[in-house]
This record gives sequence, structure tokens and C-alpha cells, in this order.
Amino acid sequence: MPGKIRTAQSVSFDVPADQQPYLHNRWHPDIPSVGAVEPGETVKIECLDWTGGQIGNNDSANDVRDIDLSKIHYLTGPFDVKGAEPGDLLVVNITDIQPFDHSPWGFTGVFDKTNGGGFLEEHYPKAAKAIWDFDGIYCSSRHIPGVRFPGLIHPGILGCAPSKEVLAEWNRREGSLVEAGTSTHPGKTLAHLPLEKSVHATTADGELKARIAKEGARTVPGRPEHGGNVDICNISRGSKTYLPVHVPGAKFSVGDLHFSQGDGEISFCGAIEMAGVITIKFDLIKNGVKSRAVPHPVFLPGEVAPHYGPSRYLTFEGFSVDEQGKQHYMDATIAYRQACLRSIEYLKQFGYSGEQIYLLLSCAPVRGCIAGIVDIPNVCTTLGVPMDIFDFDISIEKEPVKRDLGSCAYTS
Amino acid sequence: MPGKIRTAQSVSFDVPADQQPYLHNRWHPDIPSVGAVEPGETVKIECLDWTGGQIGNNDSANDVRDIDLSKIHYLTGPFDVKGAEPGDLLVVNITDIQPFDHSPWGFTGVFDKTNGGGFLEEHYPKAAKAIWDFDGIYCSSRHIPGVRFPGLIHPGILGCAPSKEVLAEWNRREGSLVEAGTSTHPGKTLAHLPLEKSVHATTADGELKARIAKEGARTVPGRPEHGGNVDICNISRGSKTYLPVHVPGAKFSVGDLHFSQGDGEISFCGAIEMAGVITIKFDLIKNGVKSRAVPHPVFLPGEVAPHYGPSRYLTFEGFSVDEQGKQHYMDATIAYRQACLRSIEYLKQFGYSGEQIYLLLSCAPVRGCIAGIVDIPNVCTTLGVPMDIFDFDISIEKEPVKRDLGSCAYTS
Amino acid sequence: MPGKIRTAQSVSFDVPADQQPYLHNRWHPDIPSVGAVEPGETVKIECLDWTGGQIGNNDSANDVRDIDLSKIHYLTGPFDVKGAEPGDLLVVNITDIQPFDHSPWGFTGVFDKTNGGGFLEEHYPKAAKAIWDFDGIYCSSRHIPGVRFPGLIHPGILGCAPSKEVLAEWNRREGSLVEAGTSTHPGKTLAHLPLEKSVHATTADGELKARIAKEGARTVPGRPEHGGNVDICNISRGSKTYLPVHVPGAKFSVGDLHFSQGDGEISFCGAIEMAGVITIKFDLIKNGVKSRAVPHPVFLPGEVAPHYGPSRYLTFEGFSVDEQGKQHYMDATIAYRQACLRSIEYLKQFGYSGEQIYLLLSCAPVRGCIAGIVDIPNVCTTLGVPMDIFDFDISIEKEPVKRDLGSCAYTS
Amino acid sequence: MPGKIRTAQSVSFDVPADQQPYLHNRWHPDIPSVGAVEPGETVKIECLDWTGGQIGNNDSANDVRDIDLSKIHYLTGPFDVKGAEPGDLLVVNITDIQPFDHSPWGFTGVFDKTNGGGFLEEHYPKAAKAIWDFDGIYCSSRHIPGVRFPGLIHPGILGCAPSKEVLAEWNRREGSLVEAGTSTHPGKTLAHLPLEKSVHATTADGELKARIAKEGARTVPGRPEHGGNVDICNISRGSKTYLPVHVPGAKFSVGDLHFSQGDGEISFCGAIEMAGVITIKFDLIKNGVKSRAVPHPVFLPGEVAPHYGPSRYLTFEGFSVDEQGKQHYMDATIAYRQACLRSIEYLKQFGYSGEQIYLLLSCAPVRGCIAGIVDIPNVCTTLGVPMDIFDFDISIEKEPVKRDLGSCAYTS
Repeated sequence: MPGKIRTAQSVSFDVPADQQPYLHNRWHPDIPSVGAVEPGETVKIECLDWTGGQIGNNDSANDVRDIDLSKIHYLTGPFDVKGAEPGDLLVVNITDIQPFDHSPWGFTGVFDKTNGGGFLEEHYPKAAKAIWDFDGIYCSSRHIPGVRFPGLIHPGILGCAPSKEVLAEWNRREGSLVEAGTSTHPGKTLAHLPLEKSVHATTADGELKARIAKEGARTVPGRPEHGGNVDICNISRGSKTYLPVHVPGAKFSVGDLHFSQGDGEISFCGAIEMAGVITIKFDLIKNGVKSRAVPHPVFLPGEVAPHYGPSRYLTFEGFSVDEQGKQHYMDATIAYRQACLRSIEYLKQFGYSGEQIYLLLSCAPVRGCIAGIVDIPNVCTTLGVPMDIFDFDISIEKEPVKRDLGSCAYTS
Repeated sequence: MPGKIRTAQSVSFDVPADQQPYLHNRWHPDIPSVGAVEPGETVKIECLDWTGGQIGNNDSANDVRDIDLSKIHYLTGPFDVKGAEPGDLLVVNITDIQPFDHSPWGFTGVFDKTNGGGFLEEHYPKAAKAIWDFDGIYCSSRHIPGVRFPGLIHPGILGCAPSKEVLAEWNRREGSLVEAGTSTHPGKTLAHLPLEKSVHATTADGELKARIAKEGARTVPGRPEHGGNVDICNISRGSKTYLPVHVPGAKFSVGDLHFSQGDGEISFCGAIEMAGVITIKFDLIKNGVKSRAVPHPVFLPGEVAPHYGPSRYLTFEGFSVDEQGKQHYMDATIAYRQACLRSIEYLKQFGYSGEQIYLLLSCAPVRGCIAGIVDIPNVCTTLGVPMDIFDFDISIEKEPVKRDLGSCAYTS
Repeated sequence: MPGKIRTAQSVSFDVPADQQPYLHNRWHPDIPSVGAVEPGETVKIECLDWTGGQIGNNDSANDVRDIDLSKIHYLTGPFDVKGAEPGDLLVVNITDIQPFDHSPWGFTGVFDKTNGGGFLEEHYPKAAKAIWDFDGIYCSSRHIPGVRFPGLIHPGILGCAPSKEVLAEWNRREGSLVEAGTSTHPGKTLAHLPLEKSVHATTADGELKARIAKEGARTVPGRPEHGGNVDICNISRGSKTYLPVHVPGAKFSVGDLHFSQGDGEISFCGAIEMAGVITIKFDLIKNGVKSRAVPHPVFLPGEVAPHYGPSRYLTFEGFSVDEQGKQHYMDATIAYRQACLRSIEYLKQFGYSGEQIYLLLSCAPVRGCIAGIVDIPNVCTTLGVPMDIFDFDISIEKEPVKRDLGSCAYTS
Repeated sequence: MPGKIRTAQSVSFDVPADQQPYLHNRWHPDIPSVGAVEPGETVKIECLDWTGGQIGNNDSANDVRDIDLSKIHYLTGPFDVKGAEPGDLLVVNITDIQPFDHSPWGFTGVFDKTNGGGFLEEHYPKAAKAIWDFDGIYCSSRHIPGVRFPGLIHPGILGCAPSKEVLAEWNRREGSLVEAGTSTHPGKTLAHLPLEKSVHATTADGELKARIAKEGARTVPGRPEHGGNVDICNISRGSKTYLPVHVPGAKFSVGDLHFSQGDGEISFCGAIEMAGVITIKFDLIKNGVKSRAVPHPVFLPGEVAPHYGPSRYLTFEGFSVDEQGKQHYMDATIAYRQACLRSIEYLKQFGYSGEQIYLLLSCAPVRGCIAGIVDIPNVCTTLGVPMDIFDFDISIEKEPVKRDLGSCAYTS
């Protein structure tokens, strides 16, 4: 008879993240496991926020500006799944995610262009921050008045450990990009290669830790072979994700919990970042990578998501023509940036600053779609803003009224 | 007392498209108007399919292979909207779209790589075709058995005429791209510049037609200033689009009707292309470009769309790592291509050919989203395939069974 | 290769309904069939409005007051389905429904208490009317300003002919009700028994017509054995209804088309009644009544319905306590009446008359639910009013402002 | 700066419910308040299950059979809302509801016909039970294999205390019903009048408790003046309910938490009954009863509900013809019973017992609608069963396969 769901791993708010021996901030096959689960079992896994507690619930963005990004992301795990072997599919049924009762808040940040940056860093190069208070499934922010919405709560990161071969491939291909970039993009960070500074790998120390530090992949990008930092808001409660297994035991890790995130997570620290507890039921499809033709993660969203009518999304279009009027060739990234910029200019009319909206688009349930990707040379993307999250009317029909909408947190 | 809705313009199936003096296939401010509408008025506007009837309801893709793309797209218009002046917003309320009763079918094509191409042209370089039969709001295809779905019927193209200045800007920026591309992408078509061949401009002839032929922008790409070929499936029945007006009278044109389209319209001729009738109620917001901060098109989708539960979308992930394993920097276009390719490989297991699925993803109600666009160097995109359009189970849970799913049309 | 969809039966606006030999207004197994369809075939069937044209597009409710209800409903059919036998299930896939292009309007009426009545006849005993103009998939009314909504268009009536035995059972049980009622409800019409006046039965005449007149069941109520006048708004485009077959050939009839209807259709003539064309694909499940345990109609709604977010329905509660404060025992009918009355009083604040709202609740997409049906002695029902159909804010948060909202049509 | 949300009242699992001085099981204006909240404040309120712990997590329905219904429902409260006066509207924003971590299960029961009964008591007169285990937002039952669904978690009961006058009116009208029923329904319980046995009223004792025992209204029925036991599943997370205030301070109480409930809650103990914590933000609209014309509760559902596509509901019809073939006049209650009975017979084909389905329809997210309520003499109701909660295909298209689906708990 089932009883209370087992907590497979708890975390501490009192001990520094890098001293908690069940967290890690790199991907590597040899990071020591912190526990084991059975296929069919449901467990709770606690997670710190992705920065390991570097950001405070206050009204200054100094901590965002000064963040140490060598430390991120602090993931909980890895967990061995009994019987999992390379070639299997690990089925991750997320059955719940909650913030901690004692910590009902999260943060959204704009990184400084020189320390992290973000999708609109040319336009908003300075650090900014919004703190969100959770009121049950809803959130609101003293830094962005006038909005309130329920969270489509989800983990930004989930994945199984890479095998030695997969890891080598990551380092090869990202290394090639960086190498090529030294001439084409001098001074620009094109990828985060292994970095020895601040490596944390559960209980690893000595030679093992040194090797992980040298070889371990950064957790910043999602990657096709295992998912990782996919930042897909629909991998929420009720979702079912099929993850390829690369090492014996799968070595599953999870973290970077988001109370809510807009499609794109545009300010990089863009979701409502939080610490919390994720509840997962694990299953296994033996040999599923081949028998189901699923070498990369595939998922089914859950039945439960904040649900606005389709006609309640004010939708902006963006094309592959950049802010300077330069035509690019089929560039969906630039196209989406234009849609974001357009919606910011639109929403500014109501009294928000650009930074407030940049933060808001990053974390509110906005929808980013690829509409047309074949009409040379312009990709057309769309950004839909749900009008019902505002407590005033943002529709086009009436002339906008500017109101006092306060301020987000800036640096001092 | 309102009566039968006025048909502002009808079209003919018996006269060649380029002889119908209310059609045009270029954007230019001086294309003679074909009629006028009042703000507040609802009218019906008939449209040919985008190719002007080049594709037949048959089982050969020869016509797709041999299509004359210099002729496209045949739009109906331009219509003057009484009182419209530059700086106004034209409000386009689409209140209905229907195929012609006498022509209840449409087509989806894969262009030959050497004549049009498409998003997956490196993988599927040869022409292919599927004919779709309409059964009320549903469609099915003898070329892609096993699927049936309702159409989210919409115009691929709607927009007001560019001003002389806007047109000059288009020609400048797209010309610059082509010019730069001659060294970087030798032999590759990066943009379609004005082309005198096959120009059709309603009643224009002589010197005027010659000038339009020389200056007129191609209708292929959508463009931020006026929308045009946006291929946004949500601009469907019930939608309300706010279009900037650039010339006196607005000179609104519409065409490229789609019975259904997937996000991205990936095979270029990818929607279910059809001829039909669109019903539009026009309104005007005077000086709205400035007073509402809407220099580019913005829209609200309609309340009525085919509606599957969120958990019914089998969703594939794609990252900025290309098919050869090369790492690209924050390239959403490549990322979406990977999601498309992954879903094709998955669906092949059930017995479809790659071309059949390529056609299907182009036109069925699949969802393309930008999930994360800040996790250097990988954009994460998702492609959601609605499982309920298939008459067999495509979920991962069971081992796939290969079945006989016929064939799409190929060239002879 | 499929072509234009066949019209199995057209109707005329120029000939009186009772002279059109493909219509009928009673249910009887011997009504001569008007055509035949194949299983798997899709056909169009034209229908008059349910009254056969008795109501005009004008500003007087005199025609509603004076309606001859002995004539209703004029159904099109019956159609033989080839191969259908008693015990089969006829599968009715509704693939489209449209008003006639030449007749883009409908009506909603409140019947006079002495001639038809309705759910709120004690409160609104006098005839009233609203004319609705169709603008594509939307409708609006000069008689109820301030609202506009898309139609969830559907047939009020669809069903197969009763067998002789089923018909006898109907007449027995409804006769018993009427008989018992003569003492308990003197003077009140509890059911409409066979009525010879105005009988119309396609081509039947002479002795056959006389027999049908004598035995034929009225079309007013829906009935469990075959469906009939179910007035279920979700049996709309895309729906699939499984109907038991009672006679060889099934003898399927359809009519009473509604552009839109609220749950309950409370004013009796309460939907937006219209003439139009329904497109149906017929299938057959042999012996399905037994092999599927479906002796009564079962259906799947379609994927396409006007779709508001759940939080956009202002919802009123109603219990089994009547307007006079009398407690009834578990009476869901009275409970729903209370919810209707409450929402009328609420909406009156904005300037509507009671009749306008009564008409509106009858035809707009309001939702009527049975919430709790076990809490003795009160059933709890709910009535949800979609706020987005109004062009002003009807939420509770702000004090209501009374505005000029015109008038519906009354009698003279 | 907001911090952890305050728990306004906790409950104990170790002390008998009737000894916990912050619970009550009758409605009366003089029940002593257990705490106070400010308008604008969010608090957590803990609740026992409605029976106060009479039902165990085991495989026998003996406890359901033997339940002491004089004790129910144990509500938490009443709470004073500062500043609330008669005539105000109390706004109850439910921002979260959760089961206790230590008690992740609930129960659904069929009461014995002689002790409680239910909607189908003539068909299923014996007690039965299903235990549901919670796996995050999902639940499943060892007693009803083959189904799993997320909860639309909600309180069955919420309301403000009646005034002396309102209470007197309740007792008058329910007394009249009982009195009239002694001749018309001898031996049948038509309403639950005040009952001194088992009265619990927070801290009341002595004369006060005696008076409450004598006058206090039972909590069984919902009532129009204040809501109470409405059993509306849509009053869930994110909902906003406007409750009339009848006494100074409002005296708000809440309880009867349901993890999930089908429309109708047909087996009476029909929801998934649980103990848990509800989080509420309170607001006040001064004088709102008059200024908003809201004398009875009105609500807005939340944006977050389990969300299946409309075409995924297999929908059964029910009319006012009872199981014995007797025709009733416009009886929605009987009509809904028929829809329930039909769906039970249908689902039995797959291997369930009638009791299992009766339990399932009571608690799963089935939809009960009033389709047509004017077609004399038959009301038409519908019951929609979401097909996606089953792990096998329940559609009509294929012949059903009987499988082993275990057993619910019965009495010994």
C-alpha cells in the first residue's frame, strides 16, 4: 500500500552549495551517484535554485551583476536507475513540482552584457532584477506591478549523464566552434568549454575531481543527445519525457527549477528561478533508443497548463531583418529578437521601462512560434503576449494610458 | 438591414491567371486598384491558389517540379479602403474563409532543389506532391493515408502596398544581401530581387507595367513593414490583424489561401494550397501606427481553432547542431530543422516515406516553438505533432508496427 | 478521385414548406424516403429553418407570437443508408454546416406563454425576438447590441426513424404522462401527442398520410431511442454521433439548424435558428447496438469549437429553491432556472432588458453544468457566461455602468 | 516584503475531530470564530476530510457502510474577515490546494442505501469504496485499475455564516419540504433538518452549544444564499468566488476538500475525499451584494484545469424517461441519471463492475451538461467521459475487449 512519497535527496539552505555532496555543476560520466531509484518508483528530489543561492530577495541587482557563472548550474544527482543500460529510454514522468514552503519566492534577472548577457544585450546591457512572490500557484512582483499569472512550473534542466564518447563529441564540436570563432568573432564567447574553476561533482575529489574539472561539459547549453538545459516550459507537471540512456544506471540529474518561463527565456536568467521539490515517477523502455527510433529526447506535455483562450494573445511578428535594417538570410534567431523588441516598444506605452518588459517577457507565459521558415530570405516568427495576465487592458483598440508602474531592481 | 455579403472581387478558373485584371504578383505602390471598400464593411474576396493554377489534381509531381516561380504569388487586389492614409492602421477582421464548392481540394508540394527548394532540400531534393480532398472542414489525402484533420484555414499573404520609400528600402536591403552573398554563397539564391519576367499588375500596362516590373518587390518573403507572406496559420477565421498603412487608400491585397499549415510551412509549397473565398470586415484606426506604437503588423488569433489537448502533442526537440554534427552558434533555424528531421525519422517507423512525412509536417497542425534562445551555443526548438490526426497510435509506449501507407506523388 | 460533394437534397425558399416533398414534420417508420446514401459517402443536405419560414427578418415579434406550432419541425429526409438494418449503428460524421449565402441571418424567439412558452415563461410571458446577422463565422444582432460571437453551428435534430414498436412505446409513455396530468396539471400541456393538423410527410398522401397523421410522433422532444431533437450544441462540425438503427435503411432525417445555442436553449425558440446546408459523412457499424452496448445515441464532439479560457466564464449558481422561496427535492430543472434568473438580474445592470438577456442566454455559448446532484435536497447547477462575447466589461470587479442597449423586437 | 504564507489554522490527525476546537459541523451565526484575516491577506487553512477521519485506507467498505453521518461535514472556521459587514461581497481567491505530504491518499465511497444513499441507490444499494493514491497531481486506485488522471482539486464547501434571518428561512423551507413529504414520500428523507446529535461548533459549549444544536443548519445541501456545499469542481485553484456576507466579520468556513470530482458527484461520497491545505487570498467588495447585484454566490473558474481536447469526451445522452420506461415531465435530474446509467453499461463491457464505474464517474473529470431544457416533456442532458484517463481505448470504433480490472472494496 503506497504511503508518503520518498524524498530521494534533500538539499540545505544553510550549507554553501559547493559543499553539498549531492549536487554537481558539470556533466561527466564519472560523477559519483548520490542515490538510486527503481523503475516504477516515484520520488521527490529537492533542488537549489540554479545559482546555488547567489541571488537575494532584495531590491538591488548588484548580485545579478556580480554573479559567478563558473558555478552554475547546481543540479541534484546523479541518480542511478536500477537496470538502466545504454540504449534504453528513461521515462521521466513529472508528477509535481513545488517551491519550498519556507521560500515562496523566485527571481528573474537580466545579466550584465559583460557577465552573462542575454538575448537583447545590445539593447539592455545593464543588470536588472525582479523578485516574484508566490501566492499559491500565482506569482506577482513588486518590481513589475500590474501583472499576475499562474506558473507552468518546470525544470529547466533534466538529463542523463553523457557517456565518455558523447562527452568527447560535445567537447570536440563546441571546441571547434570556439576555435573558428576566434577569427570570426574575436572577443565573443561562442560556447562555454570545460572550466576547472568552481567545479563541483558531488563527492568527487582528488584525481577524479580533477579529471571531471578538465573534461566535464558545462551545463549551460541543452544538447541533442541528452536534453540537459532545454528550458522547455511545457516539460511541466504531467509531462512525460523520454531520455536516451548513455551510461549504466542512466545517472539522471535535474535542476534549474522555474516557476514560470516565457518561450525563449530571453534574458538568460529569464525564468522565475527558484529552489524547490520535483516529484518524478521513473520508468524504463529497454532498448528504446533503437526500437522506438528516439536517439534524442522526445516528450509529451501535461494536461494541466495555464490556459487562456487563443484570441487572448496579442501577437507580434518578427522577421530576419535586424534592428539596423540589415537583411539576414533565413535567420530565425534574429527574427524572434525583432518580435521581442517590437512587443517591448508596444508595452512601454503603458508605463513600463524596457527592462521591466524584458524581464516580463522572459518569465511570463508568452508564446514564441516559428510561423514560416521557407520564404527566402525572411523567417517569420511570432511572439504572443497573454493579455489576461495584466490587470489593465493592453489591447490595441483603445489609446494606451501611461500609468505609474514602479521600477525593477537596478544596480547601485 | 444587412443582406447578402457583397463579393468585392471574383476570380475565374477559365481564364489564365495572368489575364485576370484584378490579380497581381508583385508589391508596388502604383499597381492599379481593383475596387474599394468602406471601413466597417464586410466583403468577400475570391482568390486563386498562389500558383495561379499551375498544379493539378493528379498523381504526378511533374507540375510541381516544373513550376514557373516567376509568376507567383497571384494575389487579389489591391483594394482601396476609403479614408485610409499613411500612418493609419487597417484592421483586418477575417470572418470566414472557404474553398470553392466546385473545387474542394488542395495540394502540398515539395519543390525540386533546383527550382524552389525548401527547408529540407538537402535531404529531399526531388519534387513530390500530395493532393488533399476536403470533406467539410476536414481533409484527407490519397497520397498520405492514415491522417485526417480539420483545417485552420488562413491566408498565407495579406498586406497593404508599400510606399515608394518602403519599396526602395526593401530593394536596398535585399539587394545588399544578394550582393554580399555572391562571394559568401556563390550560386545560392539568397533573396528574390525584382524580376521582369511574368510580372502581372492588375490593369497596368505600358510604361507603368514596365516600371512595376523593374521595381516591384517579389511576394516571396514576408516583410516587417507590411506583413505580406507571413504564413502564420493563426491568422485564421476570427483573427484580427492590425496592418500599417503606407499609401493613400491602403491598397490592401490578399491571397495564398491555405486550408491548413504546420508551423514553419517547411516544404515551401508546404501548406494545403487552395483557391477560395475570404470574408473580411475592414476597420480603420486613424493614426494608429504612432498612437498605438504599431509600426509592424500585430494580430489577435481567433477563438476557433482545431483544438487538441496539450498532452496529445508528441514533441521533438532540435538544437543548433546540424546533421553533420557541426556546432552552430545560436541558430534557431538549424535547431528547428533538427526537430523536423527527428520527427521524420520517428514517423518513418510506421511505414511512411520521408517525403510523405515532409509533406505532412508542412501542412498538418504541428506546432513549432522556440523554447530556449539564450543557452549558448544552442537554441532549443520544439516540434509538436498532434497524435489525434492519425488513425493509428503513434505514441512511444508501444513498439511501432510498419504498415502499408501507400505513396505520395513523385515525378515521372 | 473525389470531386464536388453531392447535394443529396436541396430545398426551396420559394415554395411553401408543406409543399416540398422531401420534408416531413413527424416521426414515423413509413414516411417515404427521399433519397439514399452509401456508407462512406459524404453528402450535403439542405434544410429550411425549423418553422419552415414562418419568422421574418424584421423588427416585430408578431410572427413569433402567432407561430403555428402544429407545423414544426420541418426536417429534411428521410434518407436510406444502403445496407443499414435494425441493430446497426449509423455513424453521422458532421463535416460542415453553413447558412445559405443568400440568407445570412437567423432568429431567436421567446414564445408567448399561451403559444409555446419556454423555460422562463412565468417571468417573460410575452413574445419577443432578436434577428442575428451572420458575418462569416460571427454573428451580431441589432436587437441585442454589445455582443458578437462565433457560432458553434449544429443541427438541433438528427435521428433515424423509429420502428413501429419504438413509435408505439413513445405514444404509450407520453400518452400516460398526459393522461396522468389531466388531474395533476389541469390545462397544462405536458407533452405533444400525435396531431393530425398540418402533418407533412414527404410524398405521403391518402391513406398512408392519414395513418402517419394519426400515429406519427411529434418532433418536439428528443427521445432516448433515437436522439431526435436533442439540441446539443456540441454535435457540431467535426462531431461523430452513433445512432441506433430501428428500421431497414435507417431512414435518417436532419433539421432545425442552429447557428449557435446556449446550454439549455432556454427560450425554446432559443437557438439562432436558420436555414442552411449540413455536410455529413455516413458510416455504419453493423450490429453495433449490441456489440458496442449503444442502445441510445452516443457522440464525440468535434475538435473545433469557439474557445474561451476557462477563467473567462462568469458563473452563476442555481439550487432547487424556486423563485417563491419554496424548497424542492433534488430538482435540477428548477435549479438551472434559478441560475438563469440570477444571471439575467446581473446582466440587466448594464442596460439590457430582461427579454434581451433571456434571448441572449438562449443562443450565446453559455455553459450549463450539473455541479452536484446528491446533496439533499438541493441540486447545484451552474451557468457560465463567456465574458469575451461582450464589447464591454461585465466582470464584478468594477461597478456596472448602465448604457443604452436598444431593444429587442416585441409584438405590436 | 512577503515571506512564508501564514497558516491561519492547522488541524490534527491525532485528536478526534469533535475535540478540535476550530472545526464545526453545522451552519449557525453564533459559532465562535477561530481566527481573523485581513482583506488582501493570503493564508493557509488546514482541513480534515469531510467525515473527520471515519474512512480508512484499506480494502473494506465497512467503514463507508457504517459511517456516522450525523457528524458531517467537519469544516474549518469560522474566520472573521476584518471590516466585513452584511451586504458586502467576500472575494475568495483560491491560490492553492494540496493534500498533506504525510497523507497522500483519498477515498471515494458509495453509501449504503439505508445510510446516506446516492444518485443511483436503486441500482447500487450496497456500500463500496475506492482508495486513491496521489502521485503528485495525479491519482490512481488499486480498486479501479486502468485509469489515472490529474486532480482539479477544490473545496466542496465554502461559505459565510448565515444570519439569524437566513438560518430561519432555511429551517422554514426545508421543514416545509419534510412536512409535505411525510404524506407524499413516507419514510423517505427529503432533507436533513437540525439534529442535536454529534453537533460540534468550535469552542461553543453549554447553552450556546445547545442552541446551535437545536437551530444549526446541516451542512449537507448547498444553499443559494451563501453557497456552502456546492460541490463545484471548477471552484479550484485560480478561481475567484464572490460570496455574500450575512453577519459582521463574514465568518467564513471551508472544508470537504476534493482531489477530483465529476460533475454531479453522483455517489454522494463521490469525490476523491481528502484532508489537506487550502490557500486563500481574501478581498472585500463593500456593499457588493447591492452594487453588483450579487445576492447569491458567483465565481470565475481558474486558468488551470486538466485539459483534454473537446473531441476526447465520449458523451452519453440522457432524457426524462426513467429506467422503467416512465415518462416524466421536464425532469433534468432523471435525465442525468439516465446518462449516468448508460455510460455505466457501456463501460462495463471493458471488465469493470458497475460499482467501480459508479465510483469512477463520481470522481473522475466527467462533464455533466444540460443540453436542452425546453423540448417538452424531455430534458436532454449529457455526460462526457474523458477517454484519455484510461490506459486502454474505450472508443466505440473497435469491439470492446473484456479485461481483468480487479475489484473495488466491498463490505464484509
